[in-house]
Amino acid sequence: MSFATNMRFKFPLMAIGLEVAMIVLFGLFAIFNWCATAHWCTTKLFKTASNIVNHCYRYSLPLFQDVHVMIFVGFGFLMTFLKKYGFSSVGINLLIAALGLQWGTLMQGILHSHGHKIHIGIKNMINADFSTATVLISFGAVLGKISPLQMLIMTIIEIAVFAGNEHLVAEIFKATDIGASMTIHAFGAYFGLAVAGVLYRPGLRRGHDNEESVYHSDLFAMIGTLFLWIFWPSFNSAIAEAGDKEYRAVVNTYFSLAACVLTAYAFSSLVEHRGKLDMVHIQNATLAGGVAVGTCADMAIHPYVSMIIGSIAGMVSVLGFKFLTPVFATKLRIHDTCGVHNLHGLPGVVGGLAGIVAVVLGASDTFLGKHRTMRIFNFQSLCYFLLPRSTPAMQAAALGSSIGTALVGGLITGLILKLPIWGQPSDQNCYDDSVFWEVLCTVLNK
Amino acid sequence: MSFATNMRFKFPLMAIGLEVAMIVLFGLFAIFNWCATAHWCTTKLFKTASNIVNHCYRYSLPLFQDVHVMIFVGFGFLMTFLKKYGFSSVGINLLIAALGLQWGTLMQGILHSHGHKIHIGIKNMINADFSTATVLISFGAVLGKISPLQMLIMTIIEIAVFAGNEHLVAEIFKATDIGASMTIHAFGAYFGLAVAGVLYRPGLRRGHDNEESVYHSDLFAMIGTLFLWIFWPSFNSAIAEAGDKEYRAVVNTYFSLAACVLTAYAFSSLVEHRGKLDMVHIQNATLAGGVAVGTCADMAIHPYVSMIIGSIAGMVSVLGFKFLTPVFATKLRIHDTCGVHNLHGLPGVVGGLAGIVAVVLGASDTFLGKHRTMRIFNFQSLCYFLLPRSTPAMQAAALGSSIGTALVGGLITGLILKLPIWGQPSDQNCYDDSVFWEVLCTVLNK
Amino acid sequence: MSFATNMRFKFPLMAIGLEVAMIVLFGLFAIFNWCATAHWCTTKLFKTASNIVNHCYRYSLPLFQDVHVMIFVGFGFLMTFLKKYGFSSVGINLLIAALGLQWGTLMQGILHSHGHKIHIGIKNMINADFSTATVLISFGAVLGKISPLQMLIMTIIEIAVFAGNEHLVAEIFKATDIGASMTIHAFGAYFGLAVAGVLYRPGLRRGHDNEESVYHSDLFAMIGTLFLWIFWPSFNSAIAEAGDKEYRAVVNTYFSLAACVLTAYAFSSLVEHRGKLDMVHIQNATLAGGVAVGTCADMAIHPYVSMIIGSIAGMVSVLGFKFLTPVFATKLRIHDTCGVHNLHGLPGVVGGLAGIVAVVLGASDTFLGKHRTMRIFNFQSLCYFLLPRSTPAMQAAALGSSIGTALVGGLITGLILKLPIWGQPSDQNCYDDSVFWEVLCTVLNK
Repeated sequence: MSFATNMRFKFPLMAIGLEVAMIVLFGLFAIFNWCATAHWCTTKLFKTASNIVNHCYRYSLPLFQDVHVMIFVGFGFLMTFLKKYGFSSVGINLLIAALGLQWGTLMQGILHSHGHKIHIGIKNMINADFSTATVLISFGAVLGKISPLQMLIMTIIEIAVFAGNEHLVAEIFKATDIGASMTIHAFGAYFGLAVAGVLYRPGLRRGHDNEESVYHSDLFAMIGTLFLWIFWPSFNSAIAEAGDKEYRAVVNTYFSLAACVLTAYAFSSLVEHRGKLDMVHIQNATLAGGVAVGTCADMAIHPYVSMIIGSIAGMVSVLGFKFLTPVFATKLRIHDTCGVHNLHGLPGVVGGLAGIVAVVLGASDTFLGKHRTMRIFNFQSLCYFLLPRSTPAMQAAALGSSIGTALVGGLITGLILKLPIWGQPSDQNCYDDSVFWEVLCTVLNK
Repeated sequence: MSFATNMRFKFPLMAIGLEVAMIVLFGLFAIFNWCATAHWCTTKLFKTASNIVNHCYRYSLPLFQDVHVMIFVGFGFLMTFLKKYGFSSVGINLLIAALGLQWGTLMQGILHSHGHKIHIGIKNMINADFSTATVLISFGAVLGKISPLQMLIMTIIEIAVFAGNEHLVAEIFKATDIGASMTIHAFGAYFGLAVAGVLYRPGLRRGHDNEESVYHSDLFAMIGTLFLWIFWPSFNSAIAEAGDKEYRAVVNTYFSLAACVLTAYAFSSLVEHRGKLDMVHIQNATLAGGVAVGTCADMAIHPYVSMIIGSIAGMVSVLGFKFLTPVFATKLRIHDTCGVHNLHGLPGVVGGLAGIVAVVLGASDTFLGKHRTMRIFNFQSLCYFLLPRSTPAMQAAALGSSIGTALVGGLITGLILKLPIWGQPSDQNCYDDSVFWEVLCTVLNK
Repeated sequence: MSFATNMRFKFPLMAIGLEVAMIVLFGLFAIFNWCATAHWCTTKLFKTASNIVNHCYRYSLPLFQDVHVMIFVGFGFLMTFLKKYGFSSVGINLLIAALGLQWGTLMQGILHSHGHKIHIGIKNMINADFSTATVLISFGAVLGKISPLQMLIMTIIEIAVFAGNEHLVAEIFKATDIGASMTIHAFGAYFGLAVAGVLYRPGLRRGHDNEESVYHSDLFAMIGTLFLWIFWPSFNSAIAEAGDKEYRAVVNTYFSLAACVLTAYAFSSLVEHRGKLDMVHIQNATLAGGVAVGTCADMAIHPYVSMIIGSIAGMVSVLGFKFLTPVFATKLRIHDTCGVHNLHGLPGVVGGLAGIVAVVLGASDTFLGKHRTMRIFNFQSLCYFLLPRSTPAMQAAALGSSIGTALVGGLITGLILKLPIWGQPSDQNCYDDSVFWEVLCTVLNK
């Protein structure tokens, strides 16, 4: 097995080859053009060229940086809870995010530019970071059981499928999903579960010695949890339309997350026989409120509604960890290392359903919504009035297609990754950095 | 004792009950209204409705996010220095902050809205985060000796008292305290000390085996220290008036903190018999400069003055840790786990006194201050001219009421928390996560 | 030796003396003047005084805070990889940065203000943070072999030399180096190497037991790596001209870093005999792309060009760690603890050379560059047209002077620090916090 996991040539050649391909594709298709920003900024009601550049970019940079922290520190450290898998969690996270943001820029750009050149702007960068999030979510489901080489392949395939589904949801269904509860969270979770199902290891049916945390690894994971929790309002509002929609996305996410924390703690204590709190729940379920409020975050809903959504998400997530995950592992033969189904899958579905209800109740009707909230008639609201608006059916279709394409894409990806040439670790080497990293023997005894 | 600390039903029911209450109260009193922002933004000299929304919110989001990081990562990790209490430090910090920001939004909103609906805006969110800071400071004084259930109760009471005192200081005394040296730092510290005094445990007179740090727990604490240190300029300027006052708050805090670091290091080395540095001082005293410059951060003081204030704060804080804390524990029977009196109490008083001196010297006279600093006469300065201005007497009253209400509120809260029904840990179980958290036995031996 | 390292009086007196000097100098030379901002902001095309204050400052605060995080958390934790030197890494980092930003404000201000008062504004704060970066880079070369007292002296000298060279490069050579590849990264690296060379310890020729990492210390270091990686786009654009140049600096740095990650991982695996990844490479080489793209980040280069620069930097950095560092330690008798030559030195030179090429190709010709990219003729481009522009010769001179002044300055500094009065640790006490910090004996056995 030692040779099988030797990445000496396979991995470097794949990584270099992919980077060369990215550079060539950027050379061919990507141009650095102000129109990209200009086009985006005009929707933000800025007039002169210098304003377009000054205002638009400089408004968006902090939002971009917040999302950037979530992707690299948030997701990276959230997965460091395993006692011997911290290097891979934070290291492979960085690797696939760095590849994913280049590939995501190309895939989304090609779909939106309709054959023309891709205009690289700050919005592309935010969307590129988003596209990597799907892979990082799926990574959580297969954490510890997969090789860096396999992750590179999964990154390329998943982001391509994601871009396709995202285009379908946004352009064809005209569905609204500002915080990407469906297109990123549900999609990433079910894609990862499908891969995990295909790569199921019967040998690990009874668990693995390394599949547990130590005291400090749980504290490292809290770094990830907290930065995700803190910047989630920026995540859900980063690509929202300037003005009240963006504003609502921030406020609703803020209160949804706060409410989620209390129900997550309450149910964590309730399901443990001695009423103790479980770090797994605290690290994950406290974030479910950000996922679940995503679809309708920018709609004209009242803060107490987003608090209700958050409370339900926190409860559902903890119950998922306690009761669903074991069932998945035993009955469905799907082993979900980080429990992404409970943090991203179920709350993502809750978010999709909440979006359907909100659309039914007309909360997405921005024209009325605007009047209900700020009594101002302006150019923006007129536009909305003339623009096609999302319907409940289209929202449902968006949720269905997100889960469907994820499952199909995940199954195909899993079959490709099952080929015995990608250096996956043996069962006994799972959840162990020393397979792919230089680790001093003395170290792991500490 | 094992039953007493069993939170299985008490804690979940309390947490769920509180969250339900929050949702109901938000449904009744909170509305999502642009006027909130509009009103605030007009003071920022923005004109059109779209500008109010675009500019105002988007200017303030980065400031809000900086404060948000301080509350959840800064305070949370600052308290992880205890070797077996990291889960509780960062976990209970998240719990009480999540509850506190909802309750703080309501309490402050009700006081400011004078019976009308509460308009939820970005400023409310910043103020809500501020209100949680008082509880997190007090939490430091009782860290390791209290149950999550007790913290929920303390959160509800303390924020109510804080909101009352803050309203008194700002609306009645018209005192200036932009960085909240008095209303948050001094208040939070003395409230916590009063609670710690009532809950004094004679059994821990000679200390406790768990009340010490290990090497890596001290490094985790430095994560908190650094994020607090870095974003303090945003904290002290977050609710300052747009323009030169806000600007001064940032610059003065930046230089006060820098000066504070040097005196803190110097005195830490000076008071240790072999001239070594003490992590307890570095983790805490380096932040005292941010606390002490808070009250007069936005006044027309020169950078060298804020550097003097910071230097004094760093010195006072280290001396407090070395000489006062032991006296408090033995003579006054007040055991201050994190030494909040040295980080928030004393520097908060220094800040309040500095504010009085600054007002006496007319530094708060923004009209002259403005002319002294920018020689521009505009609408703003005219307003100040007509507005009532703070007086030394009112500043002193503000300092007194902050400490007074804190002590009274803390004493009452302590008596309530002394009731033997809140599952407080036994003396031997103090400073130990395993009482309230699922912790693998093997873990704590690491 | 125990007495020699006893800092009880030397260190506190030096620290207090320096702080007093800073306060006096600020009192004499620094004033809080809006003109500072005004002057800077007018270059950002803002008109009215209130706008100058509102817009300018508020646009720049998030950029400043991003840089601030890099200096204190990024550099601080990046150096915590040593198993017994975490307190010093993050603690001394804070100390010298706090001193350096005050001293840097004075040195740069005096050079730019031509004898007049120094106008303290947000731009000074960003530049002050930058000037500390040079010392923190040099600190990495001597990490573990030097006393806090020596670092205070080094901070004072290095920042003075840096300010002189920076003035030479910017004002005399009119060279462009927006991301400071030459003036900060190459300068800091070669300054530190020169000091390390003079302070070479033959006794540590065969290494030291403490000069290795443990599992969790490597994870702490990743916190530093990730925050540096995430905020580098802000670093390279923080002092760029508002508008498209600033914008390009962000986008180019973003893609350069992403490309750098893939080549760094590929070569890390390629150079290890069993194809494993090495944390030393991941922690450092993944950042080389941000260094190397610095000089031409704001020029009119295409994203694929910055990706090529980043790819080369990642490769060069890993190869440097693998092959150059051992040669330096054995042949050149220069022991580079953190390998700053591979992270800052070589990539800084790559950046300087890339800048020369870019200038040759006219990418720095902003007027044409602007037209090539946005087809707008405005006041800005007219200015550029009239302003002197950088030439390849001047860029080469800038690179030469940065390395030259660094080496000379470093040698002189090294000779001063060699005096046996600064309490440097004995060979056996190197890389050990317990020499200068209070550390429980039990702790280091963990």
